[in-house]
Amino acid sequence: MLSSQAKAPAKRRARPAGATLKTMRFDLVTLFPDIFGGFLSEALMAKALARGVIQVTLTNPRDFAPDRHRTCDDRPYGGGPGMVLKPEPLALAIEAAGTGLPRPWRICLTPSGTRLDQAKVRELLARERLLIICGRYEGFDQRLIDLLADEEISIGDYVVNGGEVPAMVLMEAVARLTPGFMGRTLSAEEESHQAGLLEYPHYTRPPSFRGLDVPGILLSGHHQAVAEWRLAAAVAKTLDRRPEMLASDELTPALRAALAALSRPAAPGAAAVPARPSPKQPGRKAAG
Amino acid sequence: MLSSQAKAPAKRRARPAGATLKTMRFDLVTLFPDIFGGFLSEALMAKALARGVIQVTLTNPRDFAPDRHRTCDDRPYGGGPGMVLKPEPLALAIEAAGTGLPRPWRICLTPSGTRLDQAKVRELLARERLLIICGRYEGFDQRLIDLLADEEISIGDYVVNGGEVPAMVLMEAVARLTPGFMGRTLSAEEESHQAGLLEYPHYTRPPSFRGLDVPGILLSGHHQAVAEWRLAAAVAKTLDRRPEMLASDELTPALRAALAALSRPAAPGAAAVPARPSPKQPGRKAAG
Repeated sequence: MLSSQAKAPAKRRARPAGATLKTMRFDLVTLFPDIFGGFLSEALMAKALARGVIQVTLTNPRDFAPDRHRTCDDRPYGGGPGMVLKPEPLALAIEAAGTGLPRPWRICLTPSGTRLDQAKVRELLARERLLIICGRYEGFDQRLIDLLADEEISIGDYVVNGGEVPAMVLMEAVARLTPGFMGRTLSAEEESHQAGLLEYPHYTRPPSFRGLDVPGILLSGHHQAVAEWRLAAAVAKTLDRRPEMLASDELTPALRAALAALSRPAAPGAAAVPARPSPKQPGRKAAG
Repeated sequence: MLSSQAKAPAKRRARPAGATLKTMRFDLVTLFPDIFGGFLSEALMAKALARGVIQVTLTNPRDFAPDRHRTCDDRPYGGGPGMVLKPEPLALAIEAAGTGLPRPWRICLTPSGTRLDQAKVRELLARERLLIICGRYEGFDQRLIDLLADEEISIGDYVVNGGEVPAMVLMEAVARLTPGFMGRTLSAEEESHQAGLLEYPHYTRPPSFRGLDVPGILLSGHHQAVAEWRLAAAVAKTLDRRPEMLASDELTPALRAALAALSRPAAPGAAAVPARPSPKQPGRKAAG
């Protein structure tokens, strides 16, 4: 469907002199390649593909099954419900998808894997080529993981139908940090989970919306005051919702100062930021 | 694109007498509805849609923007990189998507939300209708969340391009637990994160694959011995990779017994299960 192996290298947008040119390559092994159709044809991922910032190949293990029904699943040894992915067609598909250089880092998406977080995303970004193996049914034959996966990754403590949607999560998270993916890399840098805090609240026009006003300080034009308000708002929100994120010993001096400046512990609502220009501002779960 | 509102009710597969008929409805608000094209047209989700086990509607805020460019984003008050979603077109889209009964439970997918886990999935399953609002760019205007969202949910501590892929995660996790979604509900019940343990390893034919044999006990035909081996293997894997999952005070008696039976702490490899019929079985990260 989408094979960069068969295409000539796409033209890249001009970058500042000295900037590193990098293409992030994703080789997907999946029984349902068409699930990725809309995902790879829309919005930022489609643009990144067209500009050659990322490359994607799709390989279907069914093409490597020897029987005419192209069977890839079989009943589990020891009994029990559901079907298990046969090791041989998957192994051949992984080997076919992983030919060429650089050697890919091979990831099995499983609920038992290392939990994905932003630090892991950055670690994966440093590898130039990820081969992502999507499970289905009850999962992989354990011997396939033992022999052919470099790492098992889980996107969270919940169960989904297969590895395809988790693969999209992983691809988006890694792709968006690839140089050239976004217009301004600053945007990616400032976002959530980058600085160990939840994001400060955003506002745009109009200044008043259905009775709620934008906090006055954001309209003041005082950049320093805006920056301080945002940091305090982010700290207050993090204390309220994810206090364990602030329990680390690695807080920056600015963060320590902001924490010290908060005179009281977490208030019940996320609106508990020091500066509250609008008395109408409700808690985060308004009755709506 | 896919609007169940305009369709006659789909025929449902016959269910056992007395089984509860339930349709899970998802109303999506997204600037990129076509991202969902492949996801909703393939595999189990497509079958569930065709059988009326789930219903999906897609509403695009651009259709509610008043200007001819159908603008849905604007610069942030207070400055900074990126664009913020304008509150008005989103609010109108949410209200249009949420008409009718039952009243939908409205979810904003944000990195600051409550972390999704299997308990939250079950909680959402109990609501018959979820309205899922997908963010893009730097995120929502805070007033939209304050006024129109019942809950903020995050799928994990990493950053993606928008709420669309997280919405797929949420939909799959909830949809697959809807009665009638899978052929045998037993399968869903037995899976990971259902019993507070990581999953035991699966094996299927052939008995020997590239030098690795299936653990002999799984071929023995002794159901009780197989069940004990699987529980011990799941406990050993969980101790190795996610020990905090076993720190709970709510362990079942069977789990306590399995933990007590493990004479030594977690070994470095996941293969550290009590019964090891094959001396060739390697650790989980084989050199491959």
